[in-house]
Amino acid sequence: MSPELNRKVFDDLSYGLYIVTSRNEDRLNGQIVNTVIQVTSAPPRVAVIINKKNLTHEYISKSKLFGVSVLEESAPFTFFGPFGFRSGREVDKLSKVQFKEGVTRCPLITEHSLSLLEAKVVDQIDLGTHTIFIGDAVNSEVLKEGSPLTYQYYRENMKGKTHQNSPTYAPVK
Amino acid sequence: MSPELNRKVFDDLSYGLYIVTSRNEDRLNGQIVNTVIQVTSAPPRVAVIINKKNLTHEYISKSKLFGVSVLEESAPFTFFGPFGFRSGREVDKLSKVQFKEGVTRCPLITEHSLSLLEAKVVDQIDLGTHTIFIGDAVNSEVLKEGSPLTYQYYRENMKGKTHQNSPTYAPVK
Repeated sequence: MSPELNRKVFDDLSYGLYIVTSRNEDRLNGQIVNTVIQVTSAPPRVAVIINKKNLTHEYISKSKLFGVSVLEESAPFTFFGPFGFRSGREVDKLSKVQFKEGVTRCPLITEHSLSLLEAKVVDQIDLGTHTIFIGDAVNSEVLKEGSPLTYQYYRENMKGKTHQNSPTYAPVK
Repeated sequence: MSPELNRKVFDDLSYGLYIVTSRNEDRLNGQIVNTVIQVTSAPPRVAVIINKKNLTHEYISKSKLFGVSVLEESAPFTFFGPFGFRSGREVDKLSKVQFKEGVTRCPLITEHSLSLLEAKVVDQIDLGTHTIFIGDAVNSEVLKEGSPLTYQYYRENMKGKTHQNSPTYAPVK
């Protein structure tokens, strides 16, 4: 790494906050992700970036499917925190939240979500620690109007921390 | 496209607003991009998504280099608008703004920017209409403290429109 690299610059990049879900046969899982973006308009495609250590990575790799639930700004940390700081290998993260099965059979979180999206993976890049999955949107639904929760709001107003598996984790010097 | 696909969902995804630059020998160019994200922390890597029709796409493809200037919230539309709605094939977009040459020799906009970043392309995916370029961050600099301009702020407070070459352009039905 160049000595010129000031990590503070990365804090100026803007993101939302989402629960990305997938399934592996009958097992369901989801995790907090800040890197969900639309990458093309025609066809409508989205990308998500997932750490290879995460159970959701294993499920998306196998099923080639993922769901996205867009969190609302008023979603409390006690609601979505467990999706970010616990592994689905230890706890059933879906057991305490309201969700439904989408057309892809991925779970979609209906509580504290503004909208829902499902995608089929059409391409992916190995980024070293993470994989970027590119998916064709196959289903989407607006649940309600409202302000989406942003990563900035989470860090500034909720004093939220960043998991070390996040692509935007900044190592402490 | 599935009849179930509600495009309004894509409006709930959050982005910043950036000027992404590149160079082709002595020619410089830049354009507005909302899809700049950090994709890994170790090493620090960023991704940008650029429409194949754009001159910046040609320059990044040839030079394998790009610069990112993070716009501040108070940046006026009259300043950055020309970067979004004019082509560098018709006008020299850098002629009316303050910029400097980075270590990669990409131009970096120093006016109305919070911070600057330069990257060397290490991988890319063809997304059809767009390409996602993955770059190792090789230089970064914070110019000042402040709130970054978000895509939401641009659309809601500045009544900003989306260029049809944007990955998040929503076709009018």
